[in-house]
Amino acid sequence: MTTKMRSEIAEQPAALRATLDALLPRVGEVEQLAGQTRQLLFIARGTSDNAAVYGRYLAEAHTGRLSTLAAPSIATTYKRKLDLDGVLAVALSQSGRTEEIVETLAWAKDCGAKTVAITNGGEQSPLAQAADLALCTLAGEEKAVPATKTYTTQLAALAVLGLGLGADVDPADLQRVPDAVEKLISDPGDLEAIVEGLADKPGVVVSGRGLAFSTALELALKLKEACYLHAMGLSYADLLHGPIAVVDEDTPAILVAAGEGPTLAGTVALAERVTGAGASAFTVGGGTALSAASTAALNGPDLPEWVAPLALIVPGQLLTEALARRLGIDPDAPRGLNKVTQTD
Amino acid sequence: MTTKMRSEIAEQPAALRATLDALLPRVGEVEQLAGQTRQLLFIARGTSDNAAVYGRYLAEAHTGRLSTLAAPSIATTYKRKLDLDGVLAVALSQSGRTEEIVETLAWAKDCGAKTVAITNGGEQSPLAQAADLALCTLAGEEKAVPATKTYTTQLAALAVLGLGLGADVDPADLQRVPDAVEKLISDPGDLEAIVEGLADKPGVVVSGRGLAFSTALELALKLKEACYLHAMGLSYADLLHGPIAVVDEDTPAILVAAGEGPTLAGTVALAERVTGAGASAFTVGGGTALSAASTAALNGPDLPEWVAPLALIVPGQLLTEALARRLGIDPDAPRGLNKVTQTD
Repeated sequence: MTTKMRSEIAEQPAALRATLDALLPRVGEVEQLAGQTRQLLFIARGTSDNAAVYGRYLAEAHTGRLSTLAAPSIATTYKRKLDLDGVLAVALSQSGRTEEIVETLAWAKDCGAKTVAITNGGEQSPLAQAADLALCTLAGEEKAVPATKTYTTQLAALAVLGLGLGADVDPADLQRVPDAVEKLISDPGDLEAIVEGLADKPGVVVSGRGLAFSTALELALKLKEACYLHAMGLSYADLLHGPIAVVDEDTPAILVAAGEGPTLAGTVALAERVTGAGASAFTVGGGTALSAASTAALNGPDLPEWVAPLALIVPGQLLTEALARRLGIDPDAPRGLNKVTQTD
Repeated sequence: MTTKMRSEIAEQPAALRATLDALLPRVGEVEQLAGQTRQLLFIARGTSDNAAVYGRYLAEAHTGRLSTLAAPSIATTYKRKLDLDGVLAVALSQSGRTEEIVETLAWAKDCGAKTVAITNGGEQSPLAQAADLALCTLAGEEKAVPATKTYTTQLAALAVLGLGLGADVDPADLQRVPDAVEKLISDPGDLEAIVEGLADKPGVVVSGRGLAFSTALELALKLKEACYLHAMGLSYADLLHGPIAVVDEDTPAILVAAGEGPTLAGTVALAERVTGAGASAFTVGGGTALSAASTAALNGPDLPEWVAPLALIVPGQLLTEALARRLGIDPDAPRGLNKVTQTD
């Protein structure tokens, strides 16, 4: 039986093409709105929060704008106003209906921010309606509870946002993403070995740095949601500040990196440290440098670092789906979760 | 045998008194420096990062200033400048010698920020020397690897910073903290039941919201470092967006809250949801409302929400120390960790 999650993973090349076709012509609108601001505030929860981490590193590393992940409770629980003059607030919600996110975006506008919505819920969703500018993704309906195509299309929308903010990158790189995703779906690498390597383990540490940190967080969340694994997503620097103590024979590490960029060398060194300590280091991407240092490796995309996260999560999605089935869990409907999450 | 960690936990009332006596007279200096800024950027790693989360919620909820946790890799790995005009950068490092933090503070100054150092390393430490203003904590030498008194005195320095930023709070509350810590050390609550409840578990979820979120993160880090537990620190809203799936008979939750404030009701509701699902909900603080909803409870301080985190971590420190011994681990020297961590 093919799960919905597996089908939706396979729909990503088409979903990315449709989203990029719709949003690339709108770079000028972003430019115009962003021209009145000097920094960013991302508003999100769950998977969308991991997308926001990508947006944050893209904005800081490639546009020089300070970026903050909002603490929604300041708006919704403490009901305190902040000075958001000169801030572009970007709210992400797949459904466009999570009340906490809609309320926090409205609060940001009230505090003086310009506002952008990124949602798969369409122009008529409450979140799109509340924003100065809506960048709607075209992932189509997502039925499995673990988000896949709605996540990667969010990243595509954030990449378009980055272009509108004047990122020092080649926009043509974006067009190569759908094909790179297709290639990873048909050849993800040593999936079976890693499924077996995780199947009897209580926990795993997932680590990446810079732009790939978003991928590490998202893979950790997927493994928690759909495999009930105690998966910790950590930047590799934070990992060395304490939690490295938990990596042992019973707790493998999964290390994620783009095939190029300034964080690759440190990720390779970390893989060597993990295997040197007798633990397993499973890797995703990072080219031959990282796979050579691994216990078993998943492939990554042949893409520049700034767009790599749009494809780098895909082998991790396949891993999550396969591991859930191996553990006897239905990945389409893990316990305790609903598709649209409401928090106050 | 008394461990160093246990002795250092007991030294906290004196360390807090000494630190507050030294720093409270310097509120005016903070005021003067902060007057030239309108927002905050915290630079930290590990335990200090958890202190920064307290500083962030204090600054946002009580001074209305937008606050950001820095991504040090933007400075040290991507070597990208940001526009930090109007930003007060606050770097925290217990030793004052972590190169990544010193380098990131120097970068922030170079990007136009005003700078504050919070360190236990003294006025002559590289971090204090690099900052416009140094708030030195007086915790004395800390020998156990898991930070305790250097953490709570960092929070005291952040509370003083908050006063300098014009927080809408009563400064006299701070003077009540050392006594509250003393009381919790002598009467932490049902420590033994929770040690036994965690001793055979592979993982635990630690959750809190708003100002108490810092305490949840710090307790999770302590349990990872010193007990090798797969401990996830999550805000209670993020927990509901996915990771709630991992809470079950084998994975208890530890829920943390001040005895008052706008996040208490939600934390009580979460405890009821966890026990309703057949899992254990251990609680720290939150008064009788939260302890009544718990499987077993640690006491919290009788302090207003804004200063509660300075004492709320203390029962969690005692829990960590006792659980490590119960598991046959020397809490003073967990594997894989050094006292001063260097990351690039």
